[in-house]
Amino acid sequence: MSDSQSPDQPQNTGPSKSELKKLAKAAEKEKRAAEKAAKQQELAAQQKAEADLDCATSFYGALPLNQSQSRPRRPRDKIADLSSRVGEIVVLRARVQTSRAQGNKMVFLNLRQTTDTVQALLTVTPEKVSKQMVKWTAGLADESIILVEGTVTKVQEPIKSASVSDVEIHVHQIHLISGIDGRLPFSVEDAARPDTDLETSDVQYNRVLLETRLNNRIVDLRTQTSQAIFKIQSAIGDLFREYLSSHGFIEIHSPKLQGAATESGASVFKVGYFKGNAYLGQSPQLAKQMAIAADFERVYEIGPVFRAEDSNTHRHLTEFIGLDLEMTIEEHYHEVLEVLDGLFLSIFRGLREKYTKEIGVVQKQFPADDFKWREGLEGTLRLTFREAVDILVEDGVRREDLDDFSTENEKRLGRLIKAKYDTDYYIIDKFPMALRPFYTMRDSEDPTLSNSYDFFMRGEEILSGAQRIHDPAVLCEAMRSKGVDPESMKPYVDGFRMGCNPHGGGGIGLERVVMLFLKLNNIRRASLFPRDPKRLEP
Amino acid sequence: MSDSQSPDQPQNTGPSKSELKKLAKAAEKEKRAAEKAAKQQELAAQQKAEADLDCATSFYGALPLNQSQSRPRRPRDKIADLSSRVGEIVVLRARVQTSRAQGNKMVFLNLRQTTDTVQALLTVTPEKVSKQMVKWTAGLADESIILVEGTVTKVQEPIKSASVSDVEIHVHQIHLISGIDGRLPFSVEDAARPDTDLETSDVQYNRVLLETRLNNRIVDLRTQTSQAIFKIQSAIGDLFREYLSSHGFIEIHSPKLQGAATESGASVFKVGYFKGNAYLGQSPQLAKQMAIAADFERVYEIGPVFRAEDSNTHRHLTEFIGLDLEMTIEEHYHEVLEVLDGLFLSIFRGLREKYTKEIGVVQKQFPADDFKWREGLEGTLRLTFREAVDILVEDGVRREDLDDFSTENEKRLGRLIKAKYDTDYYIIDKFPMALRPFYTMRDSEDPTLSNSYDFFMRGEEILSGAQRIHDPAVLCEAMRSKGVDPESMKPYVDGFRMGCNPHGGGGIGLERVVMLFLKLNNIRRASLFPRDPKRLEP
Repeated sequence: MSDSQSPDQPQNTGPSKSELKKLAKAAEKEKRAAEKAAKQQELAAQQKAEADLDCATSFYGALPLNQSQSRPRRPRDKIADLSSRVGEIVVLRARVQTSRAQGNKMVFLNLRQTTDTVQALLTVTPEKVSKQMVKWTAGLADESIILVEGTVTKVQEPIKSASVSDVEIHVHQIHLISGIDGRLPFSVEDAARPDTDLETSDVQYNRVLLETRLNNRIVDLRTQTSQAIFKIQSAIGDLFREYLSSHGFIEIHSPKLQGAATESGASVFKVGYFKGNAYLGQSPQLAKQMAIAADFERVYEIGPVFRAEDSNTHRHLTEFIGLDLEMTIEEHYHEVLEVLDGLFLSIFRGLREKYTKEIGVVQKQFPADDFKWREGLEGTLRLTFREAVDILVEDGVRREDLDDFSTENEKRLGRLIKAKYDTDYYIIDKFPMALRPFYTMRDSEDPTLSNSYDFFMRGEEILSGAQRIHDPAVLCEAMRSKGVDPESMKPYVDGFRMGCNPHGGGGIGLERVVMLFLKLNNIRRASLFPRDPKRLEP
Repeated sequence: MSDSQSPDQPQNTGPSKSELKKLAKAAEKEKRAAEKAAKQQELAAQQKAEADLDCATSFYGALPLNQSQSRPRRPRDKIADLSSRVGEIVVLRARVQTSRAQGNKMVFLNLRQTTDTVQALLTVTPEKVSKQMVKWTAGLADESIILVEGTVTKVQEPIKSASVSDVEIHVHQIHLISGIDGRLPFSVEDAARPDTDLETSDVQYNRVLLETRLNNRIVDLRTQTSQAIFKIQSAIGDLFREYLSSHGFIEIHSPKLQGAATESGASVFKVGYFKGNAYLGQSPQLAKQMAIAADFERVYEIGPVFRAEDSNTHRHLTEFIGLDLEMTIEEHYHEVLEVLDGLFLSIFRGLREKYTKEIGVVQKQFPADDFKWREGLEGTLRLTFREAVDILVEDGVRREDLDDFSTENEKRLGRLIKAKYDTDYYIIDKFPMALRPFYTMRDSEDPTLSNSYDFFMRGEEILSGAQRIHDPAVLCEAMRSKGVDPESMKPYVDGFRMGCNPHGGGGIGLERVVMLFLKLNNIRRASLFPRDPKRLEP
């Protein structure tokens, strides 16, 4: 109501000097606002006039921020399926990997979805594709995410730059879903180039160093290679679980926060835990064994393990994924060895059968011989530690240097075995007791040997396992002989006092399996966001 | 040789007084040793004589420590299969849950394998089962692990104390694989008894307190109830993965060690990391989103999450398993909500179809109404936050107290919904923006609301999720408005600068789903080795 006394209204006294100043300021402000509004109107009118000339305004441009405003339920298509959809109109959400304008009437795009790319093409067409639309498209930054509608069209010559090479898309509509803010640290194309191209090509390509990749891991992960690597990593987890589920295993989850520094105190991360401390698990070894003591007959676990080792090598991480299993033994620890062998064969076969495409994508950037293993009656090659030593000695290594295998001798053995047996995968059984942890069961006949084994891929260890000691008295003695105080691991030892089945198991490093199967040469490429002594980000 | 000068021989001088004393002592010691040896010989002879009378010596006794000495490959049988094997001779490895001698000629055993028990019986039988064999068997401690051979025999009256109640085993051979060293903290039978029995029975049973159980978790985990709980936990993981795999998701593993205290600094564990510090991940939230920015279209992760909250309640752990997923959105965040809903329905159906036995085993100790959800056309109940508030207000809660739901009001809402809609499972959508973390996408029309949702089971939250902000400018503004410095989370924010798809997701607490589906009333029962502010062991 007009006569109400608004609190905003000035009191009925004459205006003061400062009030006059304020009023003058306000008037000035209003004037500027009016001028600005007029300018904006003018601009809008101009834009509208231009738009009237542009037949295609509704066919391109940036979409408003998706806040789930609407849901027309229009299905989206996959680049991988396009070859079979010639002549159809499709709608794709994709990245612009690269774009190339040809004059001002045509622009080529290379569109990408995970491991697949396809060529798309805009040409000025009356009432459909305007010059402005082509210009706008040509100006899209690489890695922009767009929504495209177009017709799938057969091409005469295969398009070498695209993974789907027999068709291209003739674009009718193109809208920006998400743009780029700033500059890319490197192009996804450069990141996906094999080293061999850099060495042999006449073109001066940009080499993207591993350090740069890891600092900008999100961009590096977008390469078709990385996309394929992590599909394969995920598949290995699935194959691991499938095989074990079908062999009566259940999945467990053991705590990573532990009350005591276990197994070997030296390489454990310490955590502040309320008013005290905790330690990060180096492996689920003790928990797995306690699960066996608790009558879980066959268990597996997939989870992070932490190693506070200052190892800066191609194959060490401070955090990696352990694929662990433990099972009761009826008669002999070779029951475990056979389950583990069956597991690996099942993983290898599964990858070969269902992931040929992804393996091929990775091989383009990381050329490697296909991974080889022995099948059928012949079966997996099994050597004893002694036999493996003999092979190396025969090749000229001094026996005195072979108390344990160095990384170098491990790889040498791998090459010798590959040459002799034509396999990248083998088992070495019966390691010397001196090389194994305290919980390892001794051989019943030769006390210098143990019921333990390692599995190898391309000359590198990927699994370590053994029969474990299930008798508390024997265990305590073994602990003391390795300098471990049984009292310091009381809950673990007590588990065996309450009766425990004979058992054995093993632990696999997931990233190592990925790296060695695909021959990536550095474990960081097989870890989503790798952690090493010098890297905690991203 | 007799004339050699042994170093042990005394020198050729006369013995001193102290030397004489020593000699006398030695002579005494020798005498005692001789006496002891004689006694032992006598005992052995006696035992041998008894053994000669004992026709059954090879049919019972302790086996030597299994060091994989031999591998006769004799198959072992399962208690669960015995009903169908009447008349057959079987070999079982099992725990002695309890034993009961009847005079000196008969002993009853209750044998256990994971979730199954069966009665076994030894009776003195000429040339087969000796008195000594019965006596030895009767002396076996509860929880001993034995290898038994016997004949499966039909019984007239069902055996109430065994889960396989229509047969018993007439034992021919029984050997000890692993015995008990010391006393059990409580019996497995006591640990498996429902609270209702303690209250209603005339018998004075031992009540096993939760604290005692957790201190001796290995024994507590051996109950049929615990065995069933962890089979169901494992099944939920399988059903989660199966559903998501079949919907185009891949599994990722993100690092738990992080360079900065993310999301909310208050409740993060600090880790010593070489010369600096790291922090344990509170959730894979940021990593999942970075995976989306890196073009992984649909990802899930199963892994530990850490919460340094000093919450000592029935439903908080400091370490638990997060079932997390994140996916791109084409048009609307309800696409995510529908995937999550489909996921839960698939888990519930899978449990009902394949785990009836295990659910039944748990219900014996923890009686509960079967978990209810809505199927078919009706579909899952979805309410908005406002509608949920209205339901509570209608029931008498003051609207002013409902800015957020307290645990109490959450449960009250659960009861009201159960009464009105007959469902234990429902979704609440459109939470106020003020209640959600900075990365939550605002509603496009009402800026006080957000595109976020919680899922509930039996009146407790089990999933929290939302559409996330994928635009770096909007994100930075949201961070600042919640007091988070975008610079402190640079690698995360930078991910969005390189272009990111609209996306959403959610996180589920595995142990909560297990607890609420089975109505275990305390989350510790759903965690293998639970961690809370006061517990880091076992």
